[in-house]
Amino acid sequence: MTTTLRRGRESVTPALRLAVERMDPTSRAISSYHLGFTDLEGNPADGGGKAVRPVLATLSAQAAGAAPEVALPGAVAVELVHNFSLLHDDLMDGDTTRRHRRTVWSVWGPAAAILTGDAMLAVAQEVVLESPSPHAAQAALLLASATRELVRGQVADLAFEKRNDVGLAECLRMAADKTGALLSASAAIGAVLAGAPAPLTEALAGYGSAVGLAFQLVDDVLGIWGDPATTGKPVFSDLRSKKKSLPVTYAVEHGASVLARWLADPVPGEEHGEAELRRVAALVDSAGGRAWALAEADRQMRHAQRLLERAGLPAGPREELVALARFIVTREA
Amino acid sequence: MTTTLRRGRESVTPALRLAVERMDPTSRAISSYHLGFTDLEGNPADGGGKAVRPVLATLSAQAAGAAPEVALPGAVAVELVHNFSLLHDDLMDGDTTRRHRRTVWSVWGPAAAILTGDAMLAVAQEVVLESPSPHAAQAALLLASATRELVRGQVADLAFEKRNDVGLAECLRMAADKTGALLSASAAIGAVLAGAPAPLTEALAGYGSAVGLAFQLVDDVLGIWGDPATTGKPVFSDLRSKKKSLPVTYAVEHGASVLARWLADPVPGEEHGEAELRRVAALVDSAGGRAWALAEADRQMRHAQRLLERAGLPAGPREELVALARFIVTREA
Repeated sequence: MTTTLRRGRESVTPALRLAVERMDPTSRAISSYHLGFTDLEGNPADGGGKAVRPVLATLSAQAAGAAPEVALPGAVAVELVHNFSLLHDDLMDGDTTRRHRRTVWSVWGPAAAILTGDAMLAVAQEVVLESPSPHAAQAALLLASATRELVRGQVADLAFEKRNDVGLAECLRMAADKTGALLSASAAIGAVLAGAPAPLTEALAGYGSAVGLAFQLVDDVLGIWGDPATTGKPVFSDLRSKKKSLPVTYAVEHGASVLARWLADPVPGEEHGEAELRRVAALVDSAGGRAWALAEADRQMRHAQRLLERAGLPAGPREELVALARFIVTREA
Repeated sequence: MTTTLRRGRESVTPALRLAVERMDPTSRAISSYHLGFTDLEGNPADGGGKAVRPVLATLSAQAAGAAPEVALPGAVAVELVHNFSLLHDDLMDGDTTRRHRRTVWSVWGPAAAILTGDAMLAVAQEVVLESPSPHAAQAALLLASATRELVRGQVADLAFEKRNDVGLAECLRMAADKTGALLSASAAIGAVLAGAPAPLTEALAGYGSAVGLAFQLVDDVLGIWGDPATTGKPVFSDLRSKKKSLPVTYAVEHGASVLARWLADPVPGEEHGEAELRRVAALVDSAGGRAWALAEADRQMRHAQRLLERAGLPAGPREELVALARFIVTREA
């Protein structure tokens, strides 16, 4: 899997750099830092994310029997949309570090994060629409709709912080929007650009949604029970912020009324000692939140795999997509 | 002209409302307020801007001999992109009122302004790409490129505030990006959706750029010498903020060294009395800043008109476009 990801990242990076070249010099420099091409001083660096979405886009074209290059504009675009959302979300969430580096807004201020994100979104659309594929418009529409869903997910996520009555259904919908929508678009965009028939692109989109949901479920479990040495976050991290995560919301809906009262209590989670956080985690566990989340993640993964099998993908890309799904869901932090 | 604008606004409003319906309930409510459909309490209102860009888009389709309805998705999209930029700019500029109403960020906070703007941008692309026109992809590309230029203009505008060496050439480029790019796209998008030949869409785009520059030149003159009773702003408004406007930048480049020192002086402009601001305005005037700006605006307007004549537009749409250009440039504040 690591090989696929490394190859994928290497193949998309030159095109991603070219896309960033379209921006004004300021947005270009800030994008280059954020994407890990440069350090804070503008010197070459070798950072950046795992390029999961570009690799999905590439495998998507191959699943449709096309050359990986067909997916390239889509691969660049989904990575830009992903990073647009990171830039804006880091600002709104007040996060000062990402991937062990300072966030853009914390270095250059809010306007830089807003405008660089805006520039990424515009360039993402440009890159797809300039693709030589006769299906570029359909791919661009897929991207725009995923962007709208991504925004809807962040709107819900922020609203949940201020509410004490978040239900499991809306929590799942939020995860589908915030995590699933762009993974779904990434998994379908290569096939769309390749002109694949609707049943195939729909199967790939469904696979991406399911993988996104599985990822979020596992991520939420790690947010409570994850090993700090692996996750890089403090123990019981999501309980400290009283996050309405999926296991917590499940537990509240399944009778954990003590947990519900604790969440509604205005005392911030981080003011409680580790012993109390352990007690709260046990409440989530005994109400079935942890077991349900892991079982549901497993169910989504099997669903994703079944969608690929039913769509009759060639064995090579299918196996790579299944392996990539496993990597996404079980990745270290 | 007022009739054209009223008709234009009436024809685009239902489609604009439908586009806003695509958003999540929160972004939808905030967009409805910002676009003037509702007041702060969510009750129906009759506010909103002058819909100059949608009317341009509509006349653009008619200039290509098509029915105005052909332009509708483009008209909605340019209005959404314009309002995306207002939402983000008001936040970055810290402006608390617009069109005599409170700005979105000042009511609902920064995240609401960022996310509602993001949602508008995504929906703008969706609307164009779902248009039945076989040229939807070309129209969407026009829109994405204009968005990138708009962002570049705002990046430059913010950077100019902190610099004392802004040249006239870069100041003109900033105005072309921030004001001209979207007016240019608005003037061309209807013809693009109608499948007009490149010489016609290019003439319309050129007309829009020239009108945008003329508008900015006149707006900058009014920002210094405008009558407060008409502009609704204090007298010498742009000198109070030491704005590097076009007449000021021209004057500095043409020898007004006293003006250059005054601009570079860290004392804020609003701390100077009206007598001093009048003296500074006279410096801009005597260095030719005012006369140049008005002459250049006039030159751009004649250029715009000539482009339309040379492209051989039907007399009806051509006369309406010329009248609209005059309205945009001489409009009251």
